[in-house]
Amino acid sequence: MDVTPSAIAVDAGGSSTRAVVVSRDGNCGAVIRGGPGNPVADPDRAAATIAQVCAAASGASTQRPHLVVATVAGILSRDFPQLPPALAHQGLPSRVVMVSDLLGAYFSGTTAPEGSVLIVGTGAVAARVTGGRLSAVRDGLGWLLGDDGSGFWIGHQVARAVAADLDGRGPATTLTSRVLAGLDDVVRRSGLRTPDLAALLTWSQTRPPVELARFAVMAAGEAERDPVAASICGRAAEYALATLASLPGTEEGPVVMGGSVLGEGSPVGRQVYACLGARARRVSDGVAGAAMLAIRELGGSTDDASLARVVQALRG
Amino acid sequence: MDVTPSAIAVDAGGSSTRAVVVSRDGNCGAVIRGGPGNPVADPDRAAATIAQVCAAASGASTQRPHLVVATVAGILSRDFPQLPPALAHQGLPSRVVMVSDLLGAYFSGTTAPEGSVLIVGTGAVAARVTGGRLSAVRDGLGWLLGDDGSGFWIGHQVARAVAADLDGRGPATTLTSRVLAGLDDVVRRSGLRTPDLAALLTWSQTRPPVELARFAVMAAGEAERDPVAASICGRAAEYALATLASLPGTEEGPVVMGGSVLGEGSPVGRQVYACLGARARRVSDGVAGAAMLAIRELGGSTDDASLARVVQALRG
Repeated sequence: MDVTPSAIAVDAGGSSTRAVVVSRDGNCGAVIRGGPGNPVADPDRAAATIAQVCAAASGASTQRPHLVVATVAGILSRDFPQLPPALAHQGLPSRVVMVSDLLGAYFSGTTAPEGSVLIVGTGAVAARVTGGRLSAVRDGLGWLLGDDGSGFWIGHQVARAVAADLDGRGPATTLTSRVLAGLDDVVRRSGLRTPDLAALLTWSQTRPPVELARFAVMAAGEAERDPVAASICGRAAEYALATLASLPGTEEGPVVMGGSVLGEGSPVGRQVYACLGARARRVSDGVAGAAMLAIRELGGSTDDASLARVVQALRG
Repeated sequence: MDVTPSAIAVDAGGSSTRAVVVSRDGNCGAVIRGGPGNPVADPDRAAATIAQVCAAASGASTQRPHLVVATVAGILSRDFPQLPPALAHQGLPSRVVMVSDLLGAYFSGTTAPEGSVLIVGTGAVAARVTGGRLSAVRDGLGWLLGDDGSGFWIGHQVARAVAADLDGRGPATTLTSRVLAGLDDVVRRSGLRTPDLAALLTWSQTRPPVELARFAVMAAGEAERDPVAASICGRAAEYALATLASLPGTEEGPVVMGGSVLGEGSPVGRQVYACLGARARRVSDGVAGAAMLAIRELGGSTDDASLARVVQALRG
């Protein structure tokens, strides 16, 4: 049994939860993955999921972690008191450090104590890090009030553009056939409307609005040949950059970019990356940052070499 | 007992239902009002409401109507088979003519067999009338896919502008204090967000999205002094005019304007009215048009003098 002090690092997001045991000197165990750990909708269930994933990570390690460092989505505007008892219930350490998943993403891309992070997935949020802590946040307000340029926003613009095309109010777009092919079987009642428009209307009336985010990938796919798709992606990139620019002090330090809409294959990601230049660093998730925060809590070294080693180990 | 052939004319909309008995020669009984008669959400309840209002209108008249003419919201893309049996249940005539409320609004403003109608209330829709029947419709697709420039659209833009102001991403606007004063008591949790922004966020997460339409009146109230509100109202007017312009043949004939957003006190209504010039006619509801359709069914005269008499009688 290794006696170097160690911790469980866990990154709990809206689509998955990942945990790993990390020692003070940066040795990492196996990364364990589980279901969604965002506590906004159902905190009890999220806490149970996170605790199960942590227990599996602990079981897969030869180390005996005495600390849990959790980076958690959705805790900016609410507490998450359900997590510590759920961890205790799994026989895990009672000492829990819980911070926003924005810090997990940020420290997955940099060791700088000051900088910015921009995450554009289904939602869109930017934050400033000062002295290693969050000092300001912009947007992340949800699809109704904000999330400018997010996957939901893009998908919503796609759906409205397709509706306008089918309705004779907007320009023809290749997005229309893509979206119609993606609808499940729906009743195509029409009357004075075309059957395709009636189908889209019925679909929209029977699904939660947030499902429109699934059309975002179609905008990315059509952006090189369809002006409507290109315009939507261009506006999304402008929104993301404007949200970033509204942070105090954001012209200084690195900018860590995360989220599916800012990925390498995305025209939005390419445009944002091109504007930010050498300051930009892409990350694919936040578990490396959670591990770096855990090493910091354990008193280990958190320099660039440590981050590179952790990132390398988590890939392996 | 008057033996001139007569009918019950009823206009069933999303906020109220109005019915009146009208004779072939244009004599009108008392107008009876009742609750919402839009069948989209609950067709059985809407049918019962409409039948009750019709029964009350029949009871308030010395005539014995042998026909019901109903102009009904929301029947463009669905049937409404619940209405005839509900009318029969009230002992009302079994002969029922049912058409879209767009025709009720249209014939409240003109007797021309060809023209256009533009209704902007909580939703937004335009339609073309040819040979006295609906020949084309644009938008009216609901808040998620369409309703460009509608009361929902305006209210949504207001909420997003206020969120951006409070979040430091958008310009200051006088709408912010108006909206905050209109929120009910909500928990003002904040963290890195201002308490006001947290309150707006909580409000938006606990209400149906369509309630954002309540902020539309604030945009109208601030439009003369606040550039953000003026911009929202100006864009709403442009959307309404673009929807109208997308109808085939819409440059010919009168344009009947209805709905709260196009009312005389509204900056959106003033802008649309100014663009349309002498072709525009404002109507406040569709019961006069339902009465004119009933007179037509009864074989009576439906010239401009008849319309003027009906409108006058319904006001009295």
